[in-house]
Amino acid sequence: MIKEVIAHIESNADTYVERLKEFLGIPSVSTEESHKVDMRRAAEWVHRCFADFDITSEIIDTPGHPCVIADTGPVTGGGPTVLVYGHYDVQPVGEVSLWHSKAFDPTIREGAIYARGAADDKGQIFTHILAAESWMKVAGKFPTRFKFIVEGEEEIGSPSLDGIIRKQSDRLACEYVALSDTPKFSADTPAITYGTKGMVYKEIVVCGPKQNLHSGSYGGTLANPGNVLAEIIASLKDADNRVTIPGFYDDVRELTDEERDSIRSLDFDEAGYLAAMGAPSLDGEQGYTTLERRWARPTCDVCGLFGGFTGEGASTIIPATVMGKVSMRLVPDQDPEGISKAFDDAVRAAAPKGVKLEIKTHATCAPYVCPLESPGMKAATEAIEAGFGTKPLLTREGGSLPILPLFKEVLGADSLLMGFCNPDCNAHGPNEFLGVDDFHNGIKAAAHFVDRIAKLP
Amino acid sequence: MIKEVIAHIESNADTYVERLKEFLGIPSVSTEESHKVDMRRAAEWVHRCFADFDITSEIIDTPGHPCVIADTGPVTGGGPTVLVYGHYDVQPVGEVSLWHSKAFDPTIREGAIYARGAADDKGQIFTHILAAESWMKVAGKFPTRFKFIVEGEEEIGSPSLDGIIRKQSDRLACEYVALSDTPKFSADTPAITYGTKGMVYKEIVVCGPKQNLHSGSYGGTLANPGNVLAEIIASLKDADNRVTIPGFYDDVRELTDEERDSIRSLDFDEAGYLAAMGAPSLDGEQGYTTLERRWARPTCDVCGLFGGFTGEGASTIIPATVMGKVSMRLVPDQDPEGISKAFDDAVRAAAPKGVKLEIKTHATCAPYVCPLESPGMKAATEAIEAGFGTKPLLTREGGSLPILPLFKEVLGADSLLMGFCNPDCNAHGPNEFLGVDDFHNGIKAAAHFVDRIAKLP
Repeated sequence: MIKEVIAHIESNADTYVERLKEFLGIPSVSTEESHKVDMRRAAEWVHRCFADFDITSEIIDTPGHPCVIADTGPVTGGGPTVLVYGHYDVQPVGEVSLWHSKAFDPTIREGAIYARGAADDKGQIFTHILAAESWMKVAGKFPTRFKFIVEGEEEIGSPSLDGIIRKQSDRLACEYVALSDTPKFSADTPAITYGTKGMVYKEIVVCGPKQNLHSGSYGGTLANPGNVLAEIIASLKDADNRVTIPGFYDDVRELTDEERDSIRSLDFDEAGYLAAMGAPSLDGEQGYTTLERRWARPTCDVCGLFGGFTGEGASTIIPATVMGKVSMRLVPDQDPEGISKAFDDAVRAAAPKGVKLEIKTHATCAPYVCPLESPGMKAATEAIEAGFGTKPLLTREGGSLPILPLFKEVLGADSLLMGFCNPDCNAHGPNEFLGVDDFHNGIKAAAHFVDRIAKLP
Repeated sequence: MIKEVIAHIESNADTYVERLKEFLGIPSVSTEESHKVDMRRAAEWVHRCFADFDITSEIIDTPGHPCVIADTGPVTGGGPTVLVYGHYDVQPVGEVSLWHSKAFDPTIREGAIYARGAADDKGQIFTHILAAESWMKVAGKFPTRFKFIVEGEEEIGSPSLDGIIRKQSDRLACEYVALSDTPKFSADTPAITYGTKGMVYKEIVVCGPKQNLHSGSYGGTLANPGNVLAEIIASLKDADNRVTIPGFYDDVRELTDEERDSIRSLDFDEAGYLAAMGAPSLDGEQGYTTLERRWARPTCDVCGLFGGFTGEGASTIIPATVMGKVSMRLVPDQDPEGISKAFDDAVRAAAPKGVKLEIKTHATCAPYVCPLESPGMKAATEAIEAGFGTKPLLTREGGSLPILPLFKEVLGADSLLMGFCNPDCNAHGPNEFLGVDDFHNGIKAAAHFVDRIAKLP
C-alpha cells in the first residue's frame, strides 16, 4: 500500500505547495495580542484539514490560543500508537525591511518557499498532515492508530499545553510522539534530533529615577539604570565565556568521551556555518568545540535591550528605566526552576542599592534526551531514509522543545524528532524558508513513517 | 530710567506670559529632521521680536538650523559691550504618556508654565529679549551696546555656531557674554553658574551576525552583540564608580580644600534633591560628596540602549546589532579630543574579535570656568538680587555649554550665567516647566543687568 501512497503524494506535489502557501499566509503570531483573530483562523484551517479527510478533529479552547486534536481512532492490528505534535503559531516578523518578500506573502525563490513559519513549524507539521491525508485517500484507513496535536502557543512557551496533556492524558495516550520542528544536519543530510536544550527566559527591568533626567545636571550623583543593567549582564559570564551564576554547571551532564568522539567525527562544515551566520568569527565557552557548545553546553544570551534615548543623534539623559531580555539554554540534567532562582539571586546580588529591580520569567522548560535504541527510532530512521534517499544523522539541538519532557512525564512516551528543513532556514529571523524538495521528501518520509510504525510489533 | 523700565515690565506681566506661550508652542526640536520647518518658524519668531522694537536683526542660514543675530548698534557713553546668547531649539519630547499636558501646548498649573523648552532655553532667553524691548520702549535707546545671538542647534552640540562666531567675530565682539541657560540653586535662591562641564557623546554600535539568529540553534557558538555591549559598558567603570578609561582623570583639576569647604558650607537639600529625582538612593564616585560629584567630577553615563527583541514577552533571538549611547561629562582641564580617543581605544580593547564595532561621536565640548572677580560678575550678581530680591549663590553645573569655551577662545569674553529656572525644572524630561514668578523676576533681573553694565567703567 505504501507504494500507492507515495505515488499519490508525487502526483499531488504542486497542489500541496499551493495549500502550504495558504497556511503560511495566515499571520499567526502568538506573541502579539493583535493577531488573536489570525490565531483562531490558523487553528480552524488545521482543523478543517483533518475534517476534510474524515478523521475526528476538535478545536480545544485555552486561556490563550486554541489547540487542535485529531485521532484516527482504534485500528485493527497495527503497531504502536503515535501522537504527532506540531504548532501553527509563528515568531514575530521582526525587522520588516530585512525581508526580501513579505513574511506572510509566501513566495517561491530558487527552489524554496519563503515565509514566516515555512520551517518553524507550519511547513514541517503540514508534511505529517498531508501524509495522513494521503493514507486516508489511498487506503481509506490508517494501518496503525495515529493521533495529532497542533498547538498555537509554542513560541510563547506552551503555557496551556501542560494542562491539556495532563487533563486529556487518556485521549492522547501513545507509545511514541513524532514531530518535525527541528532542522536537518545539513542541506544534504536529514537528521533525527535525540536531544534538545531546556530554557529559562528572563526579563530584567532596572528602575532608577522616576523619569529620564538631564545627564549633566544629575550625572554622577545616582546609579544610572543603563550602566547598572550592563554591569548585571556582564557579571553573568567570565572571560572564558563561562556562566558565573553560582551552581549553574552543578547538574550539567558532561559529554562522555564516546559522545565527544562521535560529535568530532561528524562532517560539520564550520566555515559554512559561520558564513550562514555572517558573524566575524565563532566564539564561546573555552574548552569545547562549536558543535559541543551548540548541542551539549548551556548558554546565557541577551535577546533584547531597550531604554532611554534610542533615536538619531544625541539626547543627554539618564534613563529612568531600562530592560534586558536574557535566554538561558539548559542541558541535561539542569533543573529550570533551580536555574531560574539562581539567576534571580545572581542578578539581585549584582545590583547596587540605588536601583529597583523587577525580574520577569517569560518561559521555563526542561532539557530532553531520547534513548537511541528503540524500535520507534529505527522506524523513524528508515522512514527518513526512504523519503529523502539519505540516511539521517543522529544529532542534538540547541533549541528547546518544552513538550518533550512533558510528553515523557505525563504520557511516558519518548519523542522522535524528524528534521526536514535546512539548518540555516532563518527560523526566528528574516527570510525564513523551507526547500520545496524538502517539503515533498518530508511528506514522503512521514508517509513511510506511518508504514514502518504499523509494522512494528 | 531703570525704575520706569521695571514699572513697564510689571504692567505688561500678563502679555509677556501669553507671548511666551506662543513661542513655546512652536515644536522646534533640533534633533528631529521632521521639525525642520518648525525650526525656521521659531527663528523667524525670534527675529520678529527684535525687529518689532527696532534693533537690527538678521537670520543667518547654516547647513543645519538658522541662527538669529541682533545688535543695538554703537551707543554714546555706556559701559562694556555685552553679547546675550540663547537658543530656541529644544530637546525631543520623549515618552509622550508621561507628560501631564502636551509638550507643545503650554499650560499654566500651580504658578508654572509647563512646556518643552519652558526652562531650556526658550523661557530664559525670552527674559532678555523682553528686558531689551522694555528698555527700547521706555528709554527709546539702550544705555550700553548689547548684541544678541540666538541659535537653533544647542541641543545637537552647536555644529554651526563655531563657524559663525569665528567668521563674524568682529560683528560679535564684546567684553562679556550673558546667558540664562542654567538653573537657580534652589526654588528660593537664584544662582550664577561659574563653571560648566564639557562633554563627549558617543554611540557604540556592536554588530555580530548578519541578522537576528535563533538563540537555541546558534547560542553559545558566537559572540552575542548584546552581551558584548554590556561587557564593554561595564568595563568603563570600576566598583567604586571610577571611570577606568586609561588617562581619564589625568587632566582633572582637583578641587582645592577651599573649594571643598565652600561647597560643603552650602545649604544643599540632599533629601529634596533625591526626592525630586525619585531614585531609591544617591550613588556615585567614592570619596566625593553629591555636590562635588555634580559640579566638579567627570561622569560616564548610559543615555540609551537598543537592540534585538524589545516587544512584550519572549522572542528567543541573538540580536544582529545592538547600540548604546554614552555621555561623558568633563571637568577642567580634561581635553574632549583626548578623552574621545581614549574612550574609543578602551571600547575597542574591551570587545572580542567575534564582533564588529562602530563608534560614532555625536558631540564634543570643552569644560569652562569663569573668573569670580570681575566687574561683569559683580553687575550680574547685583542685577539678579535686584530682580529676585535674593542674592544669587555662586555654583557650578553638571551640564555642558559648548559655547562658553568657544566665546572665551574667539571673542576673549568670559560668560555670565544667570539662572532663573528651578533646578528640578525637568529640562530634557517630561513636564519641563518655568515658574511664572521666575519668568517675571528674570525679565526684571535682565533689565537691571543692562542698567548695571551701562554704569561700569
